Amino acid sequence: MNYPSTLLQRAVGEMSRLPGIGQKTALRLVLHLLRQERGEVENLAQSLIELRRGVRYCNVCHNLCDSELCEICSTPSRDKSTVCVVENVQDVMAIENTQQYTGVYHVLGGIISPMEGIGPSDLTIESLVERVSQGGISEVILALSPTMEGDTTNFYIYRKLQDFPVQISVIARGIAQNDELQYTDEVTLGRALAGRIPFKV
Amino acid sequence: MNYPSTLLQRAVGEMSRLPGIGQKTALRLVLHLLRQERGEVENLAQSLIELRRGVRYCNVCHNLCDSELCEICSTPSRDKSTVCVVENVQDVMAIENTQQYTGVYHVLGGIISPMEGIGPSDLTIESLVERVSQGGISEVILALSPTMEGDTTNFYIYRKLQDFPVQISVIARGIAQNDELQYTDEVTLGRALAGRIPFKV
Repeated sequence: MNYPSTLLQRAVGEMSRLPGIGQKTALRLVLHLLRQERGEVENLAQSLIELRRGVRYCNVCHNLCDSELCEICSTPSRDKSTVCVVENVQDVMAIENTQQYTGVYHVLGGIISPMEGIGPSDLTIESLVERVSQGGISEVILALSPTMEGDTTNFYIYRKLQDFPVQISVIARGIAQNDELQYTDEVTLGRALAGRIPFKV
Repeated sequence: MNYPSTLLQRAVGEMSRLPGIGQKTALRLVLHLLRQERGEVENLAQSLIELRRGVRYCNVCHNLCDSELCEICSTPSRDKSTVCVVENVQDVMAIENTQQYTGVYHVLGGIISPMEGIGPSDLTIESLVERVSQGGISEVILALSPTMEGDTTNFYIYRKLQDFPVQISVIARGIAQNDELQYTDEVTLGRALAGRIPFKV
């Protein structure tokens, strides 16, 4: 495409490097920004620069934070003896939104995926083993996606932790709330049956 | 949502103000930027700031440009006596991509749309009349979208220009290349028949 302005071309080029943003979407976003107040565009730009400069990873659980220790790890009321292992920051936010979990987290930063060239050493698994070996942790909850990669990663972590005096559990797999039984796939339904629990009122 | 970092929250908030970008997409984009080199994020931010500060509108045709006169208006080989009226910058780029047009443009900056509160005074129609009144223009080509708003704007411009010694034409409406006749809507097909031209080889 021929852009009428080199500044426009450069901005569109930079925007279209974002995932899922093509040339046309980038142009639409950039032309939108041109119609905004200068201050608003500078706020956006500044927030990205400050984010990249200022954001840190928690020394303990590798969650994103603004200081050395994330808000969850530094809250005294959180149960430090229960560690929930998740793939990424979005998963922490999803679990926090349930308001059902009072333990702490361990963010792996991905899952083992030979297809994408992600091995155990690319993740924070060593740091998890180190955390468990220091004692004080009674349960590790594996909360990864129920996929082949998730299962592989679960198994790898299990092997690394099995000799420590820590209970290793995995989040329940079964039929989702409001799903219809007849449309549920057989693997999910089989696991839901196998993983049945005593009925309580 | 509870964000683990205020810097993250601010960046997601700013990103999600862009059109078509919701909270989840904004979070995905921002987390992507966090994984990039600091220099790359600063390049993106800088390009947006410089765009907003530096981009100008052509004094003659209101196209985007880097100086007082856009590249098209300042090219001596372009035919200054033919002016193509378009809604926005993307339309200029689309027509330029055809490599069929050697005249110049006039960018309205929108079309008349009472529903969206856009009236003639919000557009650059006065500036077009001024351009035509100064002479030297023999044809004005109306190239707006074939919608109700486009038709209204065409008519408004026609009324404003009809007393000047200038030919006013409108781009052809007919069936699009590779469209199937049987699936073409009746308005388009009717106009294609009414607007038939002598067959030439």
